[in-house]
Amino acid sequence: MPTAPSPTELRCSIARTMEILGAKWSILIVRNALRGMTKFSEFRDGLGIPSDVLTARLASLVDAGILERRSYKEPGDRQRSSYHLTESGRDLKIMLAAIAQWGEVHRPTEFGTSTLHLDTETAAQVHVAFVDPDDEVVPADRVAIRPGPGALTRW
Amino acid sequence: MPTAPSPTELRCSIARTMEILGAKWSILIVRNALRGMTKFSEFRDGLGIPSDVLTARLASLVDAGILERRSYKEPGDRQRSSYHLTESGRDLKIMLAAIAQWGEVHRPTEFGTSTLHLDTETAAQVHVAFVDPDDEVVPADRVAIRPGPGALTRW
Repeated sequence: MPTAPSPTELRCSIARTMEILGAKWSILIVRNALRGMTKFSEFRDGLGIPSDVLTARLASLVDAGILERRSYKEPGDRQRSSYHLTESGRDLKIMLAAIAQWGEVHRPTEFGTSTLHLDTETAAQVHVAFVDPDDEVVPADRVAIRPGPGALTRW
Repeated sequence: MPTAPSPTELRCSIARTMEILGAKWSILIVRNALRGMTKFSEFRDGLGIPSDVLTARLASLVDAGILERRSYKEPGDRQRSSYHLTESGRDLKIMLAAIAQWGEVHRPTEFGTSTLHLDTETAAQVHVAFVDPDDEVVPADRVAIRPGPGALTRW
Protein backbone atom coordinates (compact mmCIF):
# COMPACT_ATOMS: atom_id res chain seq x y z
CA MET A 1 0.00 0.00 0.00
CA PRO A 2 1.61 3.24 -1.10
CA THR A 3 0.20 5.45 1.67
CA ALA A 4 1.11 5.11 5.32
CA PRO A 5 -1.01 2.57 7.14
CA SER A 6 -3.09 3.65 10.10
CA PRO A 7 -1.95 2.69 13.62
CA THR A 8 -4.58 -0.06 13.60
CA GLU A 9 -3.26 -1.51 10.37
CA LEU A 10 0.33 -1.35 11.61
CA ARG A 11 -0.69 -3.87 14.24
CA CYS A 12 -1.80 -6.29 11.53
CA SER A 13 0.84 -8.53 10.00
CA ILE A 14 -1.14 -8.84 6.76
CA ALA A 15 -1.20 -5.05 6.39
CA ARG A 16 2.51 -4.82 7.21
CA THR A 17 3.36 -7.41 4.56
CA MET A 18 1.18 -5.77 1.92
CA GLU A 19 2.66 -2.38 2.76
CA ILE A 20 5.90 -3.74 1.32
CA LEU A 21 4.61 -6.12 -1.32
CA GLY A 22 1.28 -4.51 -2.30
CA ALA A 23 2.76 -2.24 -4.97
CA LYS A 24 2.09 -3.44 -8.48
CA TRP A 25 4.92 -5.69 -9.80
CA SER A 26 6.59 -6.28 -6.42
CA ILE A 27 5.26 -9.80 -5.99
CA LEU A 28 6.07 -10.68 -9.62
CA ILE A 29 9.64 -9.41 -9.15
CA VAL A 30 9.99 -11.67 -6.09
CA ARG A 31 8.46 -14.53 -8.09
CA ASN A 32 11.10 -14.11 -10.79
CA ALA A 33 13.86 -13.84 -8.19
CA LEU A 34 12.64 -17.14 -6.70
CA ARG A 35 12.95 -18.59 -10.21
CA GLY A 36 16.59 -17.56 -10.23
CA MET A 37 16.65 -14.18 -11.98
CA THR A 38 19.19 -11.68 -10.66
CA LYS A 39 19.90 -9.16 -13.44
CA PHE A 40 18.02 -5.94 -14.17
CA SER A 41 17.65 -6.92 -17.84
CA GLU A 42 16.24 -10.33 -16.90
CA PHE A 43 13.57 -8.76 -14.70
CA ARG A 44 12.77 -6.08 -17.29
CA ASP A 45 12.47 -8.50 -20.20
CA GLY A 46 10.76 -11.19 -18.15
CA LEU A 47 8.08 -8.85 -16.83
CA GLY A 48 7.74 -6.32 -19.65
CA ILE A 49 7.97 -3.60 -17.01
CA PRO A 50 9.18 -0.04 -17.74
CA SER A 51 12.79 0.49 -16.58
CA ASP A 52 11.97 3.41 -14.29
CA VAL A 53 9.25 1.45 -12.51
CA LEU A 54 11.54 -1.57 -12.18
CA THR A 55 14.32 0.62 -10.74
CA ALA A 56 11.93 1.98 -8.12
CA ARG A 57 10.52 -1.43 -7.20
CA LEU A 58 13.95 -3.05 -6.91
CA ALA A 59 15.09 -0.19 -4.68
CA SER A 60 12.08 -0.58 -2.40
CA LEU A 61 12.62 -4.35 -2.17
CA VAL A 62 16.29 -3.69 -1.27
CA ASP A 63 15.18 -1.13 1.35
CA ALA A 64 12.76 -3.69 2.79
CA GLY A 65 15.54 -6.25 3.14
CA ILE A 66 13.95 -8.66 0.66
CA LEU A 67 16.59 -8.24 -2.05
CA GLU A 68 20.30 -7.57 -1.64
CA ARG A 69 22.19 -5.53 -4.25
CA ARG A 70 25.58 -6.83 -5.43
CA SER A 71 27.98 -5.63 -8.08
CA TYR A 72 29.17 -7.67 -11.01
CA LYS A 73 31.21 -6.93 -14.09
CA GLU A 74 31.34 -8.93 -17.26
CA PRO A 75 34.48 -8.69 -19.44
CA GLY A 76 34.48 -5.51 -21.53
CA ASP A 77 31.32 -4.26 -19.82
CA ARG A 78 30.75 -1.63 -17.15
CA GLN A 79 30.02 -2.56 -13.56
CA ARG A 80 26.37 -3.46 -13.00
CA SER A 81 24.11 -4.36 -10.08
CA SER A 82 22.50 -7.72 -9.54
CA TYR A 83 19.70 -8.51 -7.10
CA HIS A 84 19.63 -11.53 -4.83
CA LEU A 85 17.01 -12.73 -2.37
CA THR A 86 17.94 -12.38 1.28
CA GLU A 87 16.79 -14.93 3.84
CA SER A 88 13.70 -12.77 4.36
CA GLY A 89 13.09 -12.80 0.60
CA ARG A 90 13.56 -16.57 0.31
CA ASP A 91 11.02 -16.93 3.10
CA LEU A 92 8.39 -15.52 0.73
CA LYS A 93 8.45 -18.82 -1.18
CA ILE A 94 5.56 -20.28 0.78
CA MET A 95 3.47 -17.11 0.52
CA LEU A 96 3.93 -17.04 -3.25
CA ALA A 97 3.12 -20.74 -3.42
CA ALA A 98 -0.12 -20.05 -1.54
CA ILE A 99 -0.98 -17.25 -3.99
CA ALA A 100 -0.25 -19.57 -6.95
CA GLN A 101 -2.26 -22.40 -5.39
CA TRP A 102 -5.39 -20.27 -5.10
CA GLY A 103 -4.98 -19.09 -8.70
CA GLU A 104 -4.54 -22.65 -10.02
CA VAL A 105 -7.77 -23.75 -8.33
CA HIS A 106 -9.97 -20.68 -8.68
CA ARG A 107 -8.61 -19.02 -11.82
CA PRO A 108 -7.59 -22.07 -13.86
CA THR A 109 -6.63 -21.80 -17.52
CA GLU A 110 -6.86 -24.33 -20.31
CA PHE A 111 -3.06 -24.53 -20.30
CA GLY A 112 -2.72 -26.25 -16.93
CA THR A 113 -0.53 -25.54 -13.94
CA SER A 114 2.03 -22.79 -14.52
CA THR A 115 4.17 -23.38 -11.46
CA LEU A 116 5.11 -26.64 -9.78
CA HIS A 117 6.61 -26.92 -6.31
CA LEU A 118 8.70 -30.05 -6.01
CA ASP A 119 10.42 -31.72 -3.09
CA THR A 120 14.03 -31.88 -4.32
CA GLU A 121 14.64 -35.07 -2.32
CA THR A 122 11.68 -37.11 -3.54
CA ALA A 123 10.53 -35.17 -6.65
CA ALA A 124 7.02 -35.26 -5.16
CA GLN A 125 4.78 -32.29 -5.88
CA VAL A 126 4.09 -30.35 -2.69
CA HIS A 127 1.32 -27.97 -1.76
CA VAL A 128 0.64 -25.47 0.99
CA ALA A 129 -1.45 -26.50 4.01
CA PHE A 130 -2.14 -25.66 7.63
CA VAL A 131 -0.15 -27.84 10.03
CA ASP A 132 -0.21 -28.05 13.81
CA PRO A 133 2.84 -28.04 16.14
CA ASP A 134 3.20 -31.82 15.63
CA ASP A 135 3.33 -31.32 11.84
CA GLU A 136 -0.11 -32.87 11.43
CA VAL A 137 -2.14 -31.36 8.58
CA VAL A 138 -5.27 -29.52 9.74
CA PRO A 139 -8.06 -28.97 7.17
CA ALA A 140 -8.54 -25.27 6.46
CA ASP A 141 -12.23 -25.35 7.39
CA ARG A 142 -11.21 -26.45 10.89
CA VAL A 143 -8.96 -23.39 11.30
CA ALA A 144 -10.38 -20.36 13.11
CA ILE A 145 -8.85 -16.89 12.90
CA ARG A 146 -8.59 -15.15 16.26
CA PRO A 147 -7.00 -11.89 17.43
CA GLY A 148 -3.57 -12.36 18.99
CA PRO A 149 -1.99 -10.33 21.79
CA GLY A 150 -0.86 -7.65 19.30
CA ALA A 151 -4.31 -7.09 17.78
CA LEU A 152 -5.86 -3.67 18.45
CA THR A 153 -9.35 -4.75 17.51
CA ARG A 154 -11.32 -7.79 18.59
CA TRP A 155 -13.61 -9.76 16.33
CA MET B 1 -3.07 -5.18 -11.02
CA PRO B 2 -5.29 -2.55 -12.56
CA THR B 3 -4.07 -2.93 -16.15
CA ALA B 4 -4.61 -6.02 -18.27
CA PRO B 5 -1.88 -8.62 -17.82
CA SER B 6 0.19 -9.68 -20.81
CA PRO B 7 -0.49 -13.09 -22.37
CA THR B 8 2.62 -14.38 -20.58
CA GLU B 9 1.35 -13.21 -17.23
CA LEU B 10 -2.10 -14.71 -17.86
CA ARG B 11 -0.39 -18.08 -17.88
CA CYS B 12 0.94 -17.47 -14.38
CA SER B 13 -1.35 -18.32 -11.50
CA ILE B 14 0.38 -15.76 -9.25
CA ALA B 15 -0.33 -13.01 -11.78
CA ARG B 16 -3.93 -14.17 -12.17
CA THR B 17 -4.48 -14.09 -8.42
CA MET B 18 -2.90 -10.67 -8.04
CA GLU B 19 -4.93 -9.35 -10.97
CA ILE B 20 -7.95 -9.82 -8.72
CA LEU B 21 -6.46 -9.18 -5.30
CA GLY B 22 -3.60 -6.77 -6.10
CA ALA B 23 -5.70 -3.60 -5.84
CA LYS B 24 -5.11 -1.70 -2.64
CA TRP B 25 -7.57 -2.75 0.12
CA SER B 26 -8.80 -5.92 -1.57
CA ILE B 27 -6.78 -8.27 0.62
CA LEU B 28 -7.73 -6.35 3.76
CA ILE B 29 -11.42 -6.55 2.81
CA VAL B 30 -11.07 -10.32 2.45
CA ARG B 31 -9.19 -10.43 5.76
CA ASN B 32 -12.09 -8.68 7.50
CA ALA B 33 -14.61 -10.95 5.77
CA LEU B 34 -12.67 -13.96 7.08
CA ARG B 35 -12.99 -12.38 10.55
CA GLY B 36 -16.76 -12.40 10.10
CA MET B 37 -17.60 -8.94 8.81
CA THR B 38 -20.46 -8.76 6.31
CA LYS B 39 -21.88 -5.21 6.40
CA PHE B 40 -20.70 -2.23 4.37
CA SER B 41 -20.48 -0.09 7.52
CA GLU B 42 -18.36 -2.75 9.26
CA PHE B 43 -15.85 -2.80 6.40
CA ARG B 44 -15.82 0.99 6.13
CA ASP B 45 -15.32 1.61 9.84
CA GLY B 46 -12.95 -1.33 10.28
CA LEU B 47 -10.66 -0.25 7.46
CA GLY B 48 -11.07 3.54 7.47
CA ILE B 49 -11.58 3.35 3.72
CA PRO B 50 -13.53 5.96 1.69
CA SER B 51 -17.04 4.76 0.84
CA ASP B 52 -16.61 5.14 -2.93
CA VAL B 53 -13.41 3.07 -2.91
CA LEU B 54 -15.04 0.43 -0.74
CA THR B 55 -18.05 0.27 -3.07
CA ALA B 56 -15.75 -0.31 -6.06
CA ARG B 57 -13.63 -2.93 -4.29
CA LEU B 58 -16.65 -4.87 -2.99
CA ALA B 59 -18.13 -4.86 -6.52
CA SER B 60 -14.91 -6.21 -8.02
CA LEU B 61 -14.69 -8.94 -5.36
CA VAL B 62 -18.33 -9.88 -6.13
CA ASP B 63 -17.52 -9.93 -9.87
CA ALA B 64 -14.54 -12.18 -9.19
CA GLY B 65 -16.72 -14.63 -7.29
CA ILE B 66 -14.93 -14.08 -3.99
CA LEU B 67 -17.83 -12.33 -2.25
CA GLU B 68 -21.55 -12.90 -2.70
CA ARG B 69 -24.02 -10.02 -2.27
CA ARG B 70 -27.17 -10.66 -0.25
CA SER B 71 -29.99 -8.37 0.85
CA TYR B 72 -31.02 -7.79 4.40
CA LYS B 73 -33.42 -5.43 6.11
CA GLU B 74 -33.45 -4.44 9.73
CA PRO B 75 -36.76 -3.29 11.31
CA GLY B 76 -37.52 0.32 10.37
CA ASP B 77 -34.54 0.51 8.05
CA ARG B 78 -34.24 0.36 4.25
CA GLN B 79 -33.03 -2.75 2.46
CA ARG B 80 -29.25 -3.05 2.43
CA SER B 81 -26.60 -5.35 0.95
CA SER B 82 -24.36 -7.63 2.91
CA TYR B 83 -21.25 -9.41 1.61
CA HIS B 84 -20.42 -13.03 2.29
CA LEU B 85 -17.40 -15.10 1.30
CA THR B 86 -18.07 -17.73 -1.35
CA GLU B 87 -16.23 -21.06 -1.30
CA SER B 88 -13.57 -19.43 -3.48
CA GLY B 89 -13.30 -16.57 -0.99
CA ARG B 90 -13.07 -18.90 2.01
CA ASP B 91 -10.26 -20.70 0.19
CA LEU B 92 -8.17 -17.53 0.53
CA LYS B 93 -7.76 -18.31 4.24
CA ILE B 94 -4.48 -20.12 3.75
CA MET B 95 -3.06 -17.46 1.43
CA LEU B 96 -3.86 -14.74 3.95
CA ALA B 97 -2.37 -16.88 6.71
CA ALA B 98 0.84 -17.19 4.66
CA ILE B 99 0.92 -13.40 4.19
CA ALA B 100 0.40 -12.89 7.93
CA GLN B 101 3.04 -15.48 8.79
CA TRP B 102 5.72 -13.71 6.78
CA GLY B 103 4.79 -10.38 8.38
CA GLU B 104 4.92 -11.81 11.91
CA VAL B 105 8.44 -13.16 11.30
CA HIS B 106 9.97 -10.47 9.10
CA ARG B 107 8.05 -7.34 10.12
CA PRO B 108 7.46 -8.03 13.82
CA THR B 109 6.17 -5.37 16.18
CA GLU B 110 6.65 -4.92 19.89
CA PHE B 111 2.96 -5.78 20.35
CA GLY B 112 3.24 -9.44 19.38
CA THR B 113 1.21 -11.59 17.02
CA SER B 114 -1.87 -9.86 15.61
CA THR B 115 -3.58 -12.90 14.16
CA LEU B 116 -3.74 -16.44 15.50
CA HIS B 117 -4.83 -19.45 13.50
CA LEU B 118 -6.25 -22.12 15.77
CA ASP B 119 -7.38 -25.68 15.18
CA THR B 120 -10.98 -25.57 16.43
CA GLU B 121 -10.81 -29.22 17.47
CA THR B 122 -7.62 -29.10 19.54
CA ALA B 123 -7.12 -25.33 20.12
CA ALA B 124 -3.55 -25.81 18.87
CA GLN B 125 -1.98 -22.93 16.99
CA VAL B 126 -1.42 -23.87 13.36
CA HIS B 127 0.91 -22.46 10.74
CA VAL B 128 1.33 -22.73 6.98
CA ALA B 129 3.84 -25.21 5.54
CA PHE B 130 4.66 -27.20 2.43
CA VAL B 131 3.33 -30.74 2.58
CA ASP B 132 3.73 -33.65 0.17
CA PRO B 133 0.94 -35.92 -1.14
CA ASP B 134 1.27 -38.09 2.00
CA ASP B 135 0.72 -35.01 4.19
CA GLU B 136 4.35 -35.05 5.32
CA VAL B 137 5.82 -31.61 5.96
CA VAL B 138 8.63 -30.66 3.57
CA PRO B 139 11.03 -27.86 4.67
CA ALA B 140 10.74 -24.83 2.39
CA ASP B 141 14.45 -24.88 1.51
CA ARG B 142 13.95 -28.35 0.03
CA VAL B 143 11.21 -27.08 -2.29
CA ALA B 144 12.15 -26.15 -5.86
CA ILE B 145 9.98 -24.03 -8.13
CA ARG B 146 9.67 -25.41 -11.66
CA PRO B 147 7.58 -24.45 -14.70
CA GLY B 148 4.45 -26.57 -15.11
CA PRO B 149 2.74 -27.59 -18.35
CA GLY B 150 0.93 -24.24 -18.53
CA ALA B 151 4.06 -22.09 -18.23
CA LEU B 152 4.99 -20.08 -21.31
CA THR B 153 8.52 -19.41 -20.16
CA ARG B 154 11.12 -21.82 -18.83
CA TRP B 155 13.52 -21.02 -16.04
